[in-house]
Amino acid sequence: MSECIFCAIVAGDAPASIVLDEPDVLAFMDIRPFTPGHLLVVPKRHASGLAQLDPDDGAKVFAAGQRIATAMRSSDLPIDGVNLFLADGVAAGQEVFHVHLHLVPRTSGDGFGIRARAQTPNRTVLDGTADALRAAVESFGA
Amino acid sequence: MSECIFCAIVAGDAPASIVLDEPDVLAFMDIRPFTPGHLLVVPKRHASGLAQLDPDDGAKVFAAGQRIATAMRSSDLPIDGVNLFLADGVAAGQEVFHVHLHLVPRTSGDGFGIRARAQTPNRTVLDGTADALRAAVESFGA
Repeated sequence: MSECIFCAIVAGDAPASIVLDEPDVLAFMDIRPFTPGHLLVVPKRHASGLAQLDPDDGAKVFAAGQRIATAMRSSDLPIDGVNLFLADGVAAGQEVFHVHLHLVPRTSGDGFGIRARAQTPNRTVLDGTADALRAAVESFGA
Repeated sequence: MSECIFCAIVAGDAPASIVLDEPDVLAFMDIRPFTPGHLLVVPKRHASGLAQLDPDDGAKVFAAGQRIATAMRSSDLPIDGVNLFLADGVAAGQEVFHVHLHLVPRTSGDGFGIRARAQTPNRTVLDGTADALRAAVESFGA
């Protein structure tokens, strides 16, 4: 049995309530749901974080998430919206180190949401931050 | 000038602090950031929600988000983690009806997070929910 719980689920060695099983992607219910129907989409191939994730696997995870979210909303289930959420790194709240995209079905008044300290930087600050990030992306790509 | 603010940004008719400009995808700073460095990745082609989004555009948006997130974390910037977040529908908190993937850089103690009512359904409940969702996905795909 794998030390990674999501690899164990992919291998069929740990229990899970499966929603979608594709060649490279698996979707199953989160056992501590934020709202009813909260599920996770994972690549079958292990990747601890976004830096380790094969971009093709990332695209397939998102595509499965998009399709499931759209199907949820077009169904008769009481789902009026969907949040997609992904945590990369301990500081971001990641707890299982196998990439997973959360799909959180939403209804009005379900108690789910974001908390954040509001900020309204001016354009000069935003441009400075964008410059720093653009440089990071360009030097990373080089 | 477009009635959609993100289409106006894509067209160059509204100001934005650009981080990444690709043929089909644009990334720019959120003007009301949750944390410093909070940016949005959008498809250049208008799509109000996930149901309207071309899956190829979705894959490109996620790929750009993955690459920017990885570059952020490998840079010298004070970024220890990243959250990806997407709201689909009013009930999910969507405010601009042009698909956008939030990238929220994280540091310890930055005040950003999820709020939710904890639930711990048993396996029978999880299996029942998974059955309903799987049926929704299968009938949607058919």
